[in-house]
Amino acid sequence: MKPKAFIAVLAYLLLATTAALSQTQTSRVVPQASTKTLESLGYPADAKLLIVHADDLGMAHSINRASIKGMESGLVSSASIMIPCPWLPEIAAYARSHPAADLGLHLTLTSEWSLYRWGPVLPKERVPSLVDSSGYFYPTETEAAARINPKEAEAEIRAQIARARALGIQPTHLDSHMGTLYQNQALFETLFRVAREHQLLVRVSMEWFPSAPFLPSLLGPNDVVMNSVISIEPGVPAVGWSRFYSDAVKNLQPGITEMIVHLAYDDEEMRGVAFDHPDWGSAWRQRDFEFVTSEGFRKLLQENNVKLVTWREISKRLLEAAR
Amino acid sequence: MKPKAFIAVLAYLLLATTAALSQTQTSRVVPQASTKTLESLGYPADAKLLIVHADDLGMAHSINRASIKGMESGLVSSASIMIPCPWLPEIAAYARSHPAADLGLHLTLTSEWSLYRWGPVLPKERVPSLVDSSGYFYPTETEAAARINPKEAEAEIRAQIARARALGIQPTHLDSHMGTLYQNQALFETLFRVAREHQLLVRVSMEWFPSAPFLPSLLGPNDVVMNSVISIEPGVPAVGWSRFYSDAVKNLQPGITEMIVHLAYDDEEMRGVAFDHPDWGSAWRQRDFEFVTSEGFRKLLQENNVKLVTWREISKRLLEAAR
Repeated sequence: MKPKAFIAVLAYLLLATTAALSQTQTSRVVPQASTKTLESLGYPADAKLLIVHADDLGMAHSINRASIKGMESGLVSSASIMIPCPWLPEIAAYARSHPAADLGLHLTLTSEWSLYRWGPVLPKERVPSLVDSSGYFYPTETEAAARINPKEAEAEIRAQIARARALGIQPTHLDSHMGTLYQNQALFETLFRVAREHQLLVRVSMEWFPSAPFLPSLLGPNDVVMNSVISIEPGVPAVGWSRFYSDAVKNLQPGITEMIVHLAYDDEEMRGVAFDHPDWGSAWRQRDFEFVTSEGFRKLLQENNVKLVTWREISKRLLEAAR
Repeated sequence: MKPKAFIAVLAYLLLATTAALSQTQTSRVVPQASTKTLESLGYPADAKLLIVHADDLGMAHSINRASIKGMESGLVSSASIMIPCPWLPEIAAYARSHPAADLGLHLTLTSEWSLYRWGPVLPKERVPSLVDSSGYFYPTETEAAARINPKEAEAEIRAQIARARALGIQPTHLDSHMGTLYQNQALFETLFRVAREHQLLVRVSMEWFPSAPFLPSLLGPNDVVMNSVISIEPGVPAVGWSRFYSDAVKNLQPGITEMIVHLAYDDEEMRGVAFDHPDWGSAWRQRDFEFVTSEGFRKLLQENNVKLVTWREISKRLLEAAR
């Protein structure tokens, strides 16, 4: 895949010429950049493209079940898999039997729960900077990023990709669990290097440029940058869940947006995983599941002329555009 | 701990002098051997001692929850933990906060479910004979035993013990998941060697001598051999569950017996683990849980003068007897 330079270059040029703008102004400018790119991909210039993306597949059976149900509802267009996690064999079997599913890898360098944990695919001895004293990954992305040797991170994410392929998973894209690989320039560079070598697109949003000012300079001619990411964060009350997502969809601008959701059933397993962590916890994930599989969400997308897309589709159009 | 030679030696001598006896006759002889040992342990000669033992802790949250509930009912006296499994951190935390719990290690060299699997504590590269092409342990004890290099098995079980201790688990005994370490003489020797070095008692029953004729010769002066093991097997219908265990308790002979049970809730997680495997599956484990936590079981033990004991208690009495 050798897609023509487009979004990344536009974004880079734009950012370079808007260095003096405030953060707010910068984020206002960005959508204009990628509006143009839609045409180069064969989409109408005003297309509102949305990837509804389920994270964390493989982490737990509850997550696998809910995410598969979400994908099969037709309203979750994409998802990514955590290779180091216990329920990997189940989702790998699903990937093998559903080759059309848009499944990427949720590259994993953290293990965030208190009593249910995992560690690297590589022997701990080979990647000592990735694990805490218990031999599992560090629980937070900040702690992990502060301690990780990027060379060891690179070896580990290469091993995760190799393991995925050995299990018959053909990933359509890459992203980073808890954003660990987005924490600093060295880790971003590592992620891009590995992604490019494997000709895989990476979750990156123009909205991240203000807080990662080095980011535009890391982008290469074949990278894709989305216009925005929709992700619900702590602070939204349970009763405000639908409203948050509905408002986000109603406010969608032309361009490519990813809505990142975390699907699971609020069952005993998921409550056990997240017993002390309501944020991204069991009830949280059930709420995400209920919203994205609802008829209300389907209508909302229709009424707002939002087109669901996949990473596979974008990669394919990029490839075609490059011909 | 340097307990006086007793059960093992008696059993060995008895077996050596009854070599001409048939299998049936041999098993009839065995209880007489350890009846005498009860006195050396300070128990009445006719004591019926029962360890009610939950296997597979750490394998799944459902199993941890049900097994902890079983132990806290007072009717499950002992249990053992699978160190390579995903829910280890939860049961390790329980072990740290409940130092009086009689928790051993269920040494693990197999990974028996189709879509939920685990592999060695040691890097796969160091123990290649223990893993299949997917990098997990072999699914069956026969396949595992046929392929395992005993030196690698020894390294791995030492690593499992070391990992348990590093997590604050002080095991009271050892046993072998799916009996993999009981499959041949070399593996039995490995198990005994490691157990003796760690001064830990091992699940061994005199009932196994006929099918493992080399076993008596492997026993050392500080080993303990139980008179019998009660373990429900495929073929018992669900409606016959209570009857099976009740008959077993009513037929208990004086000596030390272990009742091996597999406790879990028949919930979504456990159904996911065992979806294609009703034997030792989700409903099976719920039935075990219901029986061993029932008031009927409590009464049955009382009415039949059965005394629940633990591996810790037996080890302690052995130590005292050796003084």
